[in-house]
Amino acid sequence: MTLAILFGGSSFEHEISIVSAITLKKVLKKTALIFIFVDANREFYLIDSDKMTSKTFSSGAYKKAKKLTLEQKGFSFNAGLLGGRKALDFDTLLNLIHGRDGEDGKIAGMMEFYGINFIGPRVEASVLSYSKLNTKLLASLIGVDTLEYQLLYKDSNRSIDLKYPVIVKPVHLGSSIGVSIVRESSELDYALDVAFEFDEEVLVEPFIEGIAEYNLAGCKTDKWELSLIEEPQKEEFLDFDKKYRDFSRDARVKEAKIDNTLKDKIETAFKKIYNPLFLGSLIRCDFFVVGENIYLNEINPIPGSMANYLFEDFESLINRLSKALPKEKKISIDYRYIHSIQSAKGKA
Amino acid sequence: MTLAILFGGSSFEHEISIVSAITLKKVLKKTALIFIFVDANREFYLIDSDKMTSKTFSSGAYKKAKKLTLEQKGFSFNAGLLGGRKALDFDTLLNLIHGRDGEDGKIAGMMEFYGINFIGPRVEASVLSYSKLNTKLLASLIGVDTLEYQLLYKDSNRSIDLKYPVIVKPVHLGSSIGVSIVRESSELDYALDVAFEFDEEVLVEPFIEGIAEYNLAGCKTDKWELSLIEEPQKEEFLDFDKKYRDFSRDARVKEAKIDNTLKDKIETAFKKIYNPLFLGSLIRCDFFVVGENIYLNEINPIPGSMANYLFEDFESLINRLSKALPKEKKISIDYRYIHSIQSAKGKA
Repeated sequence: MTLAILFGGSSFEHEISIVSAITLKKVLKKTALIFIFVDANREFYLIDSDKMTSKTFSSGAYKKAKKLTLEQKGFSFNAGLLGGRKALDFDTLLNLIHGRDGEDGKIAGMMEFYGINFIGPRVEASVLSYSKLNTKLLASLIGVDTLEYQLLYKDSNRSIDLKYPVIVKPVHLGSSIGVSIVRESSELDYALDVAFEFDEEVLVEPFIEGIAEYNLAGCKTDKWELSLIEEPQKEEFLDFDKKYRDFSRDARVKEAKIDNTLKDKIETAFKKIYNPLFLGSLIRCDFFVVGENIYLNEINPIPGSMANYLFEDFESLINRLSKALPKEKKISIDYRYIHSIQSAKGKA
Repeated sequence: MTLAILFGGSSFEHEISIVSAITLKKVLKKTALIFIFVDANREFYLIDSDKMTSKTFSSGAYKKAKKLTLEQKGFSFNAGLLGGRKALDFDTLLNLIHGRDGEDGKIAGMMEFYGINFIGPRVEASVLSYSKLNTKLLASLIGVDTLEYQLLYKDSNRSIDLKYPVIVKPVHLGSSIGVSIVRESSELDYALDVAFEFDEEVLVEPFIEGIAEYNLAGCKTDKWELSLIEEPQKEEFLDFDKKYRDFSRDARVKEAKIDNTLKDKIETAFKKIYNPLFLGSLIRCDFFVVGENIYLNEINPIPGSMANYLFEDFESLINRLSKALPKEKKISIDYRYIHSIQSAKGKA
């Protein structure tokens, strides 16, 4: 199998997508890989594997690479005056664009429209997980708990009913961008100003000091393929720099020490969330645990470096997933209604 | 202003999109129009205005038209051996693809990715209105009532708790496709079989004989622009053939005879639904009224022939809307994090 890794994008997470792609190059040793970069202007470039260093992008050197055009069934490039346009050859594309473009449904829509086989959340799954508010609606529908919250709009009044400390989050951003912990009401205004820099909608939730957090990744091929459960390292919370390093993880982590009851609860919630909405993607869900109860914190439909570090054999998993991608329903268009109206009315 | 009308698509509503486009050609008399057709294989074609008859499409004659390629900032076409590729010239695109592709977020995502000015629902608005289930979640979030319902999956058990008669609807289809009224339990199975032909998820709602229905269309430019309220003609309910004719409406309709209290309620609910999610689009909302209460039945983010027949001066409205389209947030990518990590670690 040849796997095309699509990364970059017009996103606040553009740079960590590059880090993710470089990490996957290290991890996917046996798979034939090609790299498709989306630059800040949303042009597609085919990056040589030996140019896959962060400097290629930060220096602008990528601009010397072949430009690609998206067409029905794939990408094409200019093969020179006599060569015409050639199709880029690959079997499956892995959408590794974090944040805007990748996780908001745009890339998913384009891949579906152009009939490209791809690993990643579909349009509806993207929209329901990209917004932390939609995630809460989805969770309530399928019966998975989330923490209580309050939604604020840019121009709405800024009073909140929650007890301090609280955590303030832009609705549509990942990787802790624009997130603040607020310990008393006098700090709220500044935190909201920061969050509204990034988004029109902001969620406020209780911040629970030292809350237990567990992460589980997985997907469905012909069977459930769940990772081990990790208790992520606790720093106050991950800011962007720390998260950045987090996206380059490639060493397998240790399993969290939890009992089977809790493990079952987390796995059951994961399956409820995943199936059928996220078919075709490999997602990571982050849960909080308070007493007996688990709460969904976040769905990462394109987790950093695809959460490779949570799986025993990530490379085989990606191969199996690429063979279990959902197929779009065929719609045949036979112009039956137009024909019947034409013959009924004797006009076109 | 030159307006590009995008129509067709890989959708069960492909043919009614053609009818909508032909109708808009009649209605938008003073606007310079160009027509971009998406065929069943999702190839783009530039259709001459004088070829805009249903026969061009049903006969396959459209295949002789210029093929277009979507690129950054617009569409291009092959201008012959010496001409190279030329950009298609227009100011705003109107997304007139009903159903899949147009209303499920794909076209919206592509237009945003490629930086094209367009009238139509954005990705999130598309996903929240394309699914009748997501519409219910959205309505409950913003405090607009909808009828009670039950959700069935293809493989779930088929018992329902609602009183008969009920109405069975595929979650992701419009134009009454796959919809049945079921008067007693013995008819339920067949109706579900029909609906599951089209969708993996099916909604069942109470069917209220002779329920009052009111439709209101509108958008926000620099001010609210609401249509008159229509009480649509009551046939049992609109099947596909009747709806097909409905999409070619171009004569202004009569205002429903309702009091100001009800009018206010409907307009207030419309504004709650529209703002800010549907900015950039012209939508039609269909409401039921039972006693004092109004219930949202459906959001049509790309209504048949854009509900032109509900507006006093539809053509000016489209011109005003095209000047009030939401702008995407610019994200500047400066490789600050990569630079800082490179200098900290002395490596790329």
